[in-house]
Amino acid sequence: MRVVVALGGNALLRRGQALTAENQRANARAACRALAPVACEHELVISHGNGPQVGLLALRGSAYTAVETYPLDVLGAQTEGMIGYILEQELGNELPFGRRLVTVLTMIEVDGDDPAFADPTKRIGPLYTEEEANRLEKEKGWTFKPDGKSLRRVVPSPRPRRIFESDAIAALLEWGAVVICAGGGGIPARHLDEPVPAGKRLVGVEGVIDKDFASALLAIDLEAQMLVIVTNVDAAYADWGTPAQRPIRRATPAALAGGEFAEGSMGPKIRAACQFVERTGGRAAIGSIHDAARLVRGEAGTTVALEAAGLETARLN
Amino acid sequence: MRVVVALGGNALLRRGQALTAENQRANARAACRALAPVACEHELVISHGNGPQVGLLALRGSAYTAVETYPLDVLGAQTEGMIGYILEQELGNELPFGRRLVTVLTMIEVDGDDPAFADPTKRIGPLYTEEEANRLEKEKGWTFKPDGKSLRRVVPSPRPRRIFESDAIAALLEWGAVVICAGGGGIPARHLDEPVPAGKRLVGVEGVIDKDFASALLAIDLEAQMLVIVTNVDAAYADWGTPAQRPIRRATPAALAGGEFAEGSMGPKIRAACQFVERTGGRAAIGSIHDAARLVRGEAGTTVALEAAGLETARLN
Repeated sequence: MRVVVALGGNALLRRGQALTAENQRANARAACRALAPVACEHELVISHGNGPQVGLLALRGSAYTAVETYPLDVLGAQTEGMIGYILEQELGNELPFGRRLVTVLTMIEVDGDDPAFADPTKRIGPLYTEEEANRLEKEKGWTFKPDGKSLRRVVPSPRPRRIFESDAIAALLEWGAVVICAGGGGIPARHLDEPVPAGKRLVGVEGVIDKDFASALLAIDLEAQMLVIVTNVDAAYADWGTPAQRPIRRATPAALAGGEFAEGSMGPKIRAACQFVERTGGRAAIGSIHDAARLVRGEAGTTVALEAAGLETARLN
Repeated sequence: MRVVVALGGNALLRRGQALTAENQRANARAACRALAPVACEHELVISHGNGPQVGLLALRGSAYTAVETYPLDVLGAQTEGMIGYILEQELGNELPFGRRLVTVLTMIEVDGDDPAFADPTKRIGPLYTEEEANRLEKEKGWTFKPDGKSLRRVVPSPRPRRIFESDAIAALLEWGAVVICAGGGGIPARHLDEPVPAGKRLVGVEGVIDKDFASALLAIDLEAQMLVIVTNVDAAYADWGTPAQRPIRRATPAALAGGEFAEGSMGPKIRAACQFVERTGGRAAIGSIHDAARLVRGEAGTTVALEAAGLETARLN
């Protein structure tokens, strides 16, 4: 079976944890241990988020004033290199000797007039106090929105339209490799009207694509049988945050369409899973990285499939 | 013909130029225009240096004190993403529509007891005054060595032993892609004695591999017919810096073995070119990025080949 696993930023960095190289590596190691059995049994593609990392690189760029900071597309490319490297090295250690493993830099086309550019929603970087956020808003023109009791920087998150490297990723899968790609939702790029030998000039865009939507598009492109979205909770919940909250075990896209799920968190995961299932008839799962192998078998987390009986929930143990 | 082109840091950033995203992009665009005809005629692999970039990321990491800076392997991985992205996008614009192009993250094995770890020689980052260098030496324990009239940070530069992704790169070439890889000389890694499913645990190493030696190893692995090392001078020179200096047009590895070439500059390029030619019987060229197509045809720069007549030089026009 061909499986795309989308690693949430929260699977690579626990909320509130400092974004040191050591913490990233320790979390990546745990994630890769959980993914190794999946890689041994299936064709595996791993995508990942970069929210905390790209935000940190922006802060580092701003702190060193001798050279102006880089735009978000360039910082996103840096995070693809960094996170891809850590995942490739840690997963390589967990797989049998000689297993093929390749990390592919991924660019994704977005619309230049995507409404997201006027309404930034994607949270990046650390949590800020109101005082810090006000200062950065004035100094750098960054935008902040509430995140729990704190504030977080938000940037435009345009819809992914086309993954430039899908064919290469498919060729590497057929060659037998585990492929790490579409890091940080892919590097957003758009076409200008300027003619170049290739047609119209492709340029980078200041934004961060949602990695769940990018991963759904990737799974559709690759004709994957399954999309697994892993995060730091064990399933999607019905009536989340109320006394009646209960994990959704299995649901159709139609049954999930009426549910309410947190924007910037479970909401995009549910929509991305539904997109994939509706477009391909494949199966999607949402749950904890530690359950990776069980998620693939449909034994844990939330499964989204056309053939479910509406919305099936369970009480927690 | 299969051609590996190694882009020098100086081909991507002119000496003294600020390391802004705009300058890197403008230089990358010029380099890619020069490489496009080569990509149209040959199987092309592009490797590149990262000296200025990895040094800048280390400075940025140090300037933002809330999270400790990352080790050089992680920063090197960031530069593979960043420079690979800029090259892939700019080269894609210059090639006919639909031409396949892939950037592959590259790790390279080094010996844990390489003598380079005790004697740092690889120059990274910007030029420093003596005062700045003294301060950084005290604050961060960095090592500095003279570079012209200024000082520059130096880090260990172990020998590349094995490129983990060579087979994947070969598969992508056979699939028809231009491949960008081995950025910054590849991310240095070594095996610990700790057992893991893959054998011994692979971990990153604090160092920067010389991109010329990495590119020679890459060209040998890929059974390339040609290795082209491009820089900011038009050829290697005999008697460089003396009134008798003259460009070397063509030479055997044996004839070059006696010559004196600047360490950290032309020296490693000459040695890398000779290694490739001696190991494979192929042809190597050293010269300016602007002459890329002519270098491949042997019409510009310095050609290194077994069948040259010793050391052939020419007067400059």
